[in-house]
Amino acid sequence: MGRALVRALRAADHPTTVWNRTPGRDAEPLALGARPAATAAGAVADAPLVLLCVRDRTAARAVLDAAGEALRGRTVVNATSITPEDARADAVEAGARGYRILDAAILTPTPTIGGPGGTVLVSGDAAAFAEHEHTLRALGTVRHVGTDPGRAAAFDAALLDLFWTTVHGWVHALALARAEGISGAELAPYAQGLPRILPPLIDDFARRADEHRHPGDHSTLASAAAGLAHVAHTARSRGLDTSVLDAALALTRRAVDAGHGPDGVSALVERLSVR
Amino acid sequence: MGRALVRALRAADHPTTVWNRTPGRDAEPLALGARPAATAAGAVADAPLVLLCVRDRTAARAVLDAAGEALRGRTVVNATSITPEDARADAVEAGARGYRILDAAILTPTPTIGGPGGTVLVSGDAAAFAEHEHTLRALGTVRHVGTDPGRAAAFDAALLDLFWTTVHGWVHALALARAEGISGAELAPYAQGLPRILPPLIDDFARRADEHRHPGDHSTLASAAAGLAHVAHTARSRGLDTSVLDAALALTRRAVDAGHGPDGVSALVERLSVR
Repeated sequence: MGRALVRALRAADHPTTVWNRTPGRDAEPLALGARPAATAAGAVADAPLVLLCVRDRTAARAVLDAAGEALRGRTVVNATSITPEDARADAVEAGARGYRILDAAILTPTPTIGGPGGTVLVSGDAAAFAEHEHTLRALGTVRHVGTDPGRAAAFDAALLDLFWTTVHGWVHALALARAEGISGAELAPYAQGLPRILPPLIDDFARRADEHRHPGDHSTLASAAAGLAHVAHTARSRGLDTSVLDAALALTRRAVDAGHGPDGVSALVERLSVR
Repeated sequence: MGRALVRALRAADHPTTVWNRTPGRDAEPLALGARPAATAAGAVADAPLVLLCVRDRTAARAVLDAAGEALRGRTVVNATSITPEDARADAVEAGARGYRILDAAILTPTPTIGGPGGTVLVSGDAAAFAEHEHTLRALGTVRHVGTDPGRAAAFDAALLDLFWTTVHGWVHALALARAEGISGAELAPYAQGLPRILPPLIDDFARRADEHRHPGDHSTLASAAAGLAHVAHTARSRGLDTSVLDAALALTRRAVDAGHGPDGVSALVERLSVR
C-alpha cells in the first residue's frame, strides 16, 4: 500500500520523500522520482504533509516517536488501520506534541489507489484537511467524514464488519454445498443473486435504522429465525461447524422472545447493545 | 406464495384446482378462474401435477396424509421449505405409496413468480420433471438440479446460509456505526461497495473451493484474523454484542493456528467440517 501511495503522489507530480522501516524497500519509489530519507525524522523534515502507512498502531507510534521533534508544525495523515478510540487518543497526543494528525481509512484495494475508484475517508481537524485536500486527492476519491478523529476508523470498522461477515457466509455456504455434493461452480451462479438483491436491502435497512422503525412487511424476525434454524440444522446434520449461524440464530431468537417476531429483520439493529 | 403460484399458472392458462387448509382464503384464485376443491383429496384427484406449498414439513406431511389414496399415480412438486434429508425420505415414502414427489426450492420472492426473475430449483425423478417441465415453467426460470431429491433443498440451504449471514453482517455494521455516531444514511453509500466487489469474489472463492487450492495472493487468513479482531474489539468497546464476529474470528484463528495464516481466506472451506 505504501508503494501505491507513492505511485499516486508521483503520478500527480507531488514532490515526495520516502522512508521505509526496512531499508532497501524503496527501489520502486526512487525510480518514480521520490527522494529517499535516511531516517523518519529526515522524511518528516522535508514536507508539511506526512503520510503514514504501516502495519498497526504499535508500528505507527514507533515511527512517530522516532520522528520526534521534527513533527512539530506538520500534518500527519495516518493511513494505518487503527480503532476509533486510538485515533482520538492519537489526535490528543499530537496536539500536545505540536503537530496535527488526521486519521485516514483506505476502503479500497491497492490497485484502485490513484484512480477515482480509490476511496479514502479522512477524519479530524477540518483546517488541516482543507490545507492538504488537494494533495490527498491524488490518492483517489477522498472524503472528510467529520472532525471527530475517530470517524474514519469507525466507518472502516463498520464496513469491515459487513465484509468479513459476508465472506464467512460465503465460505460456509460453499462448505455446506460441498457436503451435499454441490460444487462451487454449480452454486456460484445462484449466489450471484445476492449482489443483485443487496443494493435496495442495504438502503432499506439503513433508512429503517435511522428512523427506528422496522415494519415486518418484507421479512420478519420470526421468519429469519426459522430460516437460520433450518440452515443451521442442515449444516449440523452434515457435520459442519455452525458457530457463526448459531450466534446469528441466538441473537434472532432473543429478539423474537422479546416480542419482536413480527418486526422486520432490521429491528436487530436496536438489540445489539449489551450495555 | 400459494396465491402467487396460482396467479402464474392461471396467467399461463393452465387449468388449476386450489385447496387451502384454511377455508375462505381462495377468493383471489377463484377470481382468476381456478376451481375450488373441498378437500386435499379432491384437489389432488383433479390433476396429474400437484403443487404443494405450506408452512413446513409437518404441515406438508399432514396434507399428503389427508390426500391419501388420491395421490396414487400423481406427481407432487413440494415447494415447502424442507431439509435435503427430509426431501430424500419423502421421495422414498412417495415411492412406497405409489406417487412421485419432486422437491422444489423457490429462490426468489413472491413478486418474481411467473416472470423470468422467478427462480425455482427442482430435484428428484428426472422423468417426472420432464413430464411436467412445461407446466412448471409458468412459475419462472425452472431448473432441474439433479435426481437426488435433496439437491434443491441443499442449494436453498447454502444460499440461505449466505443470505442470512450477510444480513447479520449489515445489521451489525449499522449498530456499530450508530454506536460511533454514524447514521445509516452516511454508511450506506460506502456499504454499496460490497455488492460491487462480491461478483468476482463469489466466483473466485467457488473456483478455489472446487480446486482445493487457496493461494494467499489477494488476502490471507492472517490478515482476515487481524481484521476481524480489530472489528470485534471496536464493537466490544462500544458495548455491542460480538457473538457472530467472535465465532468468525475463532474459526479464522483456528485455521491460522493450524498453519494456514499465509493461505487465502477461501481455505476456510476446507476447515468447517467438525467430523
